Amino acid sequence: MAGKLASEDLIAVAGGGLLHRRLFLKAGLVLATAQTATSLRAEEASPPKAEDPADPSWIHKTGLPFTGYGAPSKYEKHVVRNIGGNRTPQGDGVSWTPLEELEGIVTPSGLHFERHHDGVPEIDPAVHRLVIHGLVQRPLEFTVANLLRYPMRSRFLFIECGGNSNAGWHEEPIQRPAGAFHGLVSCAEWTGVPLSLLLNEAGVDPKASWVIAEGADAGLLNVSLPLSKLMDDAMVGLYQNGERVRPENGYPIRLIVPGWEGITNVKWLRRLHVTDAPAMTRNETAKYTELLPSGKARMFTFVMDAKSLITSPSPGQKMHGANVYEIRGLAWSGSGKISKVEVSADGGKSWAEAELQDPVMSQCFTRFRSPWAWDGKAALLKSRATDETGYVQPERDVLIKERGREGYFHYNAIVCWAVDEDGTISHVYA
Amino acid sequence: MAGKLASEDLIAVAGGGLLHRRLFLKAGLVLATAQTATSLRAEEASPPKAEDPADPSWIHKTGLPFTGYGAPSKYEKHVVRNIGGNRTPQGDGVSWTPLEELEGIVTPSGLHFERHHDGVPEIDPAVHRLVIHGLVQRPLEFTVANLLRYPMRSRFLFIECGGNSNAGWHEEPIQRPAGAFHGLVSCAEWTGVPLSLLLNEAGVDPKASWVIAEGADAGLLNVSLPLSKLMDDAMVGLYQNGERVRPENGYPIRLIVPGWEGITNVKWLRRLHVTDAPAMTRNETAKYTELLPSGKARMFTFVMDAKSLITSPSPGQKMHGANVYEIRGLAWSGSGKISKVEVSADGGKSWAEAELQDPVMSQCFTRFRSPWAWDGKAALLKSRATDETGYVQPERDVLIKERGREGYFHYNAIVCWAVDEDGTISHVYA
Repeated sequence: MAGKLASEDLIAVAGGGLLHRRLFLKAGLVLATAQTATSLRAEEASPPKAEDPADPSWIHKTGLPFTGYGAPSKYEKHVVRNIGGNRTPQGDGVSWTPLEELEGIVTPSGLHFERHHDGVPEIDPAVHRLVIHGLVQRPLEFTVANLLRYPMRSRFLFIECGGNSNAGWHEEPIQRPAGAFHGLVSCAEWTGVPLSLLLNEAGVDPKASWVIAEGADAGLLNVSLPLSKLMDDAMVGLYQNGERVRPENGYPIRLIVPGWEGITNVKWLRRLHVTDAPAMTRNETAKYTELLPSGKARMFTFVMDAKSLITSPSPGQKMHGANVYEIRGLAWSGSGKISKVEVSADGGKSWAEAELQDPVMSQCFTRFRSPWAWDGKAALLKSRATDETGYVQPERDVLIKERGREGYFHYNAIVCWAVDEDGTISHVYA
Repeated sequence: MAGKLASEDLIAVAGGGLLHRRLFLKAGLVLATAQTATSLRAEEASPPKAEDPADPSWIHKTGLPFTGYGAPSKYEKHVVRNIGGNRTPQGDGVSWTPLEELEGIVTPSGLHFERHHDGVPEIDPAVHRLVIHGLVQRPLEFTVANLLRYPMRSRFLFIECGGNSNAGWHEEPIQRPAGAFHGLVSCAEWTGVPLSLLLNEAGVDPKASWVIAEGADAGLLNVSLPLSKLMDDAMVGLYQNGERVRPENGYPIRLIVPGWEGITNVKWLRRLHVTDAPAMTRNETAKYTELLPSGKARMFTFVMDAKSLITSPSPGQKMHGANVYEIRGLAWSGSGKISKVEVSADGGKSWAEAELQDPVMSQCFTRFRSPWAWDGKAALLKSRATDETGYVQPERDVLIKERGREGYFHYNAIVCWAVDEDGTISHVYA
């Protein structure tokens, strides 16, 4: 283990082997993760028989031709969204982003999580319209071609389902890969028209204070949103990661509401009804509302609070013996930028500050990394996010005390992975 | 045109109708791009017959089911890479990113440009090896599984083929969509292992100064690179836009050399031979070398100089009458951050500073936008990038004076689009 690290390199900054976050930047550092040529092949779990690594078949023949639109390698076919959840009626359910298979902060659009109530409509953009009406001076109807001519802006933003991670409310810790537990969150570069431009063009009545946004799926999903937020930073999203929005994410247009729960980012947006009161729709009364221990209910809990998650190591992965590892994960906050992520290897007794990958952007995934000298003994890994408002991600018992046992939405407690002596990783409450 | 803009909003900052870049941020601004409901449908070129926009068929039936890995809408099937170039022998050619169809700065991986000499090898990651040898203390061989355990970093970076835009050297201006002229450049979030970590582990001999990088395609493409650059900021790329590198971009590993010409970013990387001199390979002698007017030749011209391009409006698109438009484009520099992009509507007589979309990152695409009140008369649009070193993108005649008529690589002159009175856009030298 870490035999070639000089002892002065290993600056412990917290218990359980957590090292200073600048460790990997040190010039001349030798990690001994790679072996020399002779020792290496013995390590392969299933040594290839058909191919000689020194002389593989593909260097002897012309490869595949050019493609108009590319796809991942056939060797990555296991990296897919995990389809699950409540699939009755047909078209109602979720698919999870496999966060533990990804790196960086962009979620490729093919793997962006889905939450539909009535399936994915196949919308012809030449037919689709966006209508703004209600308490406005001039009701307006926009074609998609119209919208494409408006001034745009781009932002890297996460979108997270209000119900993400809700297995955390269970009495027993769920055992699943990180993405199939916390993967109803994804991050993309969204480009679109600032909604304030369109609302101003319609001329909002001073009496207006809410907007009912409606999608063009079979259920005409609708939610009520405060006008102030929509005027502040919402946009009509037309592009996702450079290309037009994907069908399962709202093609041809999606309402983008930075930092707010997924359902407010209405897909297949067709109507914005400007009003002076919320509509009290099904999705803000029967759903997305929670009873608190006090007997009161939380409603219109739009902002997704700060949260973080260690994606590597995580359940389903395996440690390869005592050595120096890089702990990797994601943090995000609906309230602004992530200001700090701390990691613990002793279940929260001591914490070390992780390195944040720049650029750190508001209401966007932030990738964190931290070096860890694992000694091969049982360990408890946690991460804890703090955002620029000073909000700190809570421990699970604190969240439950505040929110009670009836919780279903907005679970953002600190997650704990137990690393066993044999290198397996499991989810624990600790 | 722009009838609802108050005259005080239209702050001219350059000739030909260029407006102050902050125009679109003004609250209450009415652009009159959208029409009211009654007038709008008449504008549709081909009014839909089968579907009523107010009551389309898709709101009456459950949509499509969940998918493991998504794809763009069937209505976007025209947004593909433009395959072309020298396709003899088979597997030798290019495919162009359709830059004029995209927004923001991320190029979706399915549309990242391709340049292959011998097709796309289908590499089994369990077989593939990376070898570091030559002037090192310990020759090392890495499996992909090994590399995935190393510390990583992520960067948003453009990669541009050294031959991009080389139709600009032609005597007559080529008439093609912007992407089929300048689209051998794309931008992605790359995540990988800093190469300095691996080289330090091998223990580089003090006599070493060059590294020969070799790919695992049928031609074993190789190039010589200064050791200093590889130690500075190169990485072994494992992830592209969050997921594992795409086959046509080097799966399972690609050498990432920020800001340097595409060919140095060796795909399917299999070997790094540390030496004390360049290998003078085919791709740095017969190719990627240019005769100058002085009779000397340019070689090892690694850095891609600052460049910019207006993607909208651009050839193949059409203006829709006198109105306020948003000029949109991309700028990038291999030397660092873009510090300024100016646009001109009068062929370069006067210039206005465009708005740069944050985050502005080093050696990465920067999106620029600028409002333009087109009066319906003939206009000449240009953009001009300046980077943080102070380098300014040159006019075409300046570039040709410096580099002569034998140029083939590194064409980065200012591009001029002519807007005709009928709204068509063409490429001109002006």
